[in-house]
Amino acid sequence: MTDGLTYRDVGVDLASADRAKRAMAPLLQAASDGNTLSGLGAFGGLYAMPADLSEPVLVASADGVGTKLKVAFATGRHDTVGQDLVNHCVNDILVQGARPLFFLDYLAVGDLDESVVESVVGGVARACRENACALLGGETAEMPDFYAPGEYDLAGFVVGVVERSRLLDGASVREGDTLIALPSSGLHTNGFTLARSIVFERMGLGVDDPFPGEAATVGEVLLREHRSYLAELWPLLERGWVRALAHVTGGGIEGNLPRVLPDGLGARVDLGSWRAPNVFRLLGQGGGVAEEEMYRVFNMGVGMIVAVAPENESEVLASLGEGAWPIGAVVAGEGVELDGRASC
Amino acid sequence: MTDGLTYRDVGVDLASADRAKRAMAPLLQAASDGNTLSGLGAFGGLYAMPADLSEPVLVASADGVGTKLKVAFATGRHDTVGQDLVNHCVNDILVQGARPLFFLDYLAVGDLDESVVESVVGGVARACRENACALLGGETAEMPDFYAPGEYDLAGFVVGVVERSRLLDGASVREGDTLIALPSSGLHTNGFTLARSIVFERMGLGVDDPFPGEAATVGEVLLREHRSYLAELWPLLERGWVRALAHVTGGGIEGNLPRVLPDGLGARVDLGSWRAPNVFRLLGQGGGVAEEEMYRVFNMGVGMIVAVAPENESEVLASLGEGAWPIGAVVAGEGVELDGRASC
Repeated sequence: MTDGLTYRDVGVDLASADRAKRAMAPLLQAASDGNTLSGLGAFGGLYAMPADLSEPVLVASADGVGTKLKVAFATGRHDTVGQDLVNHCVNDILVQGARPLFFLDYLAVGDLDESVVESVVGGVARACRENACALLGGETAEMPDFYAPGEYDLAGFVVGVVERSRLLDGASVREGDTLIALPSSGLHTNGFTLARSIVFERMGLGVDDPFPGEAATVGEVLLREHRSYLAELWPLLERGWVRALAHVTGGGIEGNLPRVLPDGLGARVDLGSWRAPNVFRLLGQGGGVAEEEMYRVFNMGVGMIVAVAPENESEVLASLGEGAWPIGAVVAGEGVELDGRASC
Repeated sequence: MTDGLTYRDVGVDLASADRAKRAMAPLLQAASDGNTLSGLGAFGGLYAMPADLSEPVLVASADGVGTKLKVAFATGRHDTVGQDLVNHCVNDILVQGARPLFFLDYLAVGDLDESVVESVVGGVARACRENACALLGGETAEMPDFYAPGEYDLAGFVVGVVERSRLLDGASVREGDTLIALPSSGLHTNGFTLARSIVFERMGLGVDDPFPGEAATVGEVLLREHRSYLAELWPLLERGWVRALAHVTGGGIEGNLPRVLPDGLGARVDLGSWRAPNVFRLLGQGGGVAEEEMYRVFNMGVGMIVAVAPENESEVLASLGEGAWPIGAVVAGEGVELDGRASC
């Protein structure tokens, strides 16, 4: 039966999948911790629940990297998108006061290029270690007529824990609290469909061209990793100085800050308190994007916003170091008022 | 600045995303449970850790639906793939003895068709309810030049819990244990790249054609939902009658049964103990696929395999009802020996 079909004939190579899995073993091993009970090959990852909390609340979040992946495809650089993913997820549970326990990834590929898979998962594993989070497992799916050769999608899922009494749920936020901004490293993982359209289509740049106004290529600027704020903010959370945290992702400051404020309270953000980094100014000019739209789509240089009691402001600023700045205040009302003209 | 770009111009409609999110609120609400502490819009989902375990182990798994999604696209039927996803994940942690606590989904779409999103997430929510599992959150990503209009990828993550002393880790498996098979409902979520190639290309069938030998269309047969074995197996797990469970997914019986057997033990599976259902026989004939390849790629009618002590065999079979049958035994050695000719 020489014309008999095999799985490999239609693009799914189980032997290659097996090799890719084995290549991941040391990555998972290096990103395990004392609570990891399972090895590679288990159906589910096993993680011993930490026993040091009296009323533990699990906090979980799922996310993807979005079309930032297209920049990775264009540059052939696949070792940073895993960090984007893990750091994004870690920040999302940090805003509720949780520290990460473990992470799982979902990687769907068109063809199983083992070096690309290892590079992507290697980035995931590295970021897990940096966030003291175990990489507990994941799924690598081979979908040959679904993704183009060389393309993939990447999603991830984090589980963390917080003592119930220390949950950040907005209840301690008060009118007059100071809002402090922490800088982003660039676009993080949001607005890439618009950013790519401006840079590659309107401006006609390629990933290897110099990015105007920066000593870096277009690819390097666009791929700058989404920052994790865990290390900077954890000491403040432990001291009880943080009343709310907003992770500035899709929807920008206006879309995210209200999510962590209780009913009856809004925010005033002083646009004159910082200058949007070069990449955002260039995108705005290159695409002729209205300023309001820029603030709705991009983080504009603000990766995280911390609400603190006015009496703790100076200590918090000292702890966060030079990058942080007061960006506004909690006010009566609702929503976010972007106040004054941006300093462009 | 009339030529100024907006996010919507490049295919990302935040207002539509907002409406889709609001449409999901009642779905998440209906699939919450007494431990769910968060509502829609939170950065992370909150779940109070159950306090009824003395040494809880968290068990987590990530999975996708694979190219079964292509059949959903072709039929326009989007309400079953969520069940495939949840049931697959629930089975994957069940094999380690865990019951599910909560689930999160990742849905990446080319264009945000609100009715499709609601249909997909509605299926996820329904399956969560059926598995007594909270739908804690998820991510819907709009990636317009990444997925074709009308296409999407869907992945999911489950977290469950098991008392450490009741973990199924293979330690209680003995030579001579009986293996009992539970029937699958069809392809479940594996082998679809090969199955689609055979059915649509080699055999030239369309999704609305009658499936040969069945009173159902090709689309209906291929979309049959991946079964969850939680309800059937949980009573047996509680009684301590289950020594190991193997979820028969990608890699078939040979690829999955050895994953749950300890070193030094293998399995003999009697191919004459059941007749592969019509769909598998037709795929084998239609594609001229070698029998060994069929057993490596597809579940061949076996969705789950249970290892039990011989003295519990009759009680377990009685509890599982008519669908279950003895399929073989645990033997000294390693790997799986497929014994005898299949009854085709």
